[in-house]
Amino acid sequence: MASGQGSNARIVLQQCLSARLQVQPATEDTEAKYVETGKGLVMYVCFLKGATADILDKMDLPGNILIIPQATLGGALKGKRMQYHKNIDKEEGASLYADFVSLCRTTLQEAEGSREAGCVVQAGTYGNRQVFSCDTNGPYTHLLEF
Amino acid sequence: MASGQGSNARIVLQQCLSARLQVQPATEDTEAKYVETGKGLVMYVCFLKGATADILDKMDLPGNILIIPQATLGGALKGKRMQYHKNIDKEEGASLYADFVSLCRTTLQEAEGSREAGCVVQAGTYGNRQVFSCDTNGPYTHLLEF
Repeated sequence: MASGQGSNARIVLQQCLSARLQVQPATEDTEAKYVETGKGLVMYVCFLKGATADILDKMDLPGNILIIPQATLGGALKGKRMQYHKNIDKEEGASLYADFVSLCRTTLQEAEGSREAGCVVQAGTYGNRQVFSCDTNGPYTHLLEF
Repeated sequence: MASGQGSNARIVLQQCLSARLQVQPATEDTEAKYVETGKGLVMYVCFLKGATADILDKMDLPGNILIIPQATLGGALKGKRMQYHKNIDKEEGASLYADFVSLCRTTLQEAEGSREAGCVVQAGTYGNRQVFSCDTNGPYTHLLEF
């Protein structure tokens, strides 16, 4: 289990034709709310212990992006169970996540090509129950650690 | 970039309600062929250099499984590009992949609970262009290295 040694954040990237993520569950009075993206990238993000704002600007990418907080990515296999000792505190994680989403939005706005192409950053809500669907023309899943 | 140091195989696991993978593209005469799975696991698999058959029996899991060969998972970020020096040769990878799928099928057959529940292992074809769609009630993405 070499993964995560010395890493502060872990990202799984997947190309998509379209994707949809629930950001607020339905209640008695309101329907569930979703964010959607067209052709672009789905980015699953997990911050590990020791992550600070310094790493955020190493992580950004251009294009349409749907950013999904994904604490399960921080797990390590122990026997037949996953353990999550390496994950950052929930509050710190939520704060880094919000800053990361903001940074991606700013970066996209500053990139002329992305701005002209009308690229959008959509993001899930941290710590929420999520519902997700995705269509790809080849998943092309990548793993990045920072 | 700690990931992959000393690892021989990398798996990304994702829970799904349903998922569908193209295993043969359409031709002039035939329609595209797909494998589908219901509620279960999507497993993206990548073998790295040094992988041998010894590791296969560490990797198996119970339940409905859709296994997807995913060479992009073996990449490492170099500047702004992904490099794939660590990936195993295509022929060796195809062979390990076929053996791994067989092992998962055998394991599932031997597990009374999975057999009685009618669990099925579906698998993509190695080295093929893939088309993939997936619905989840929370992606719950996990990373495993062996």
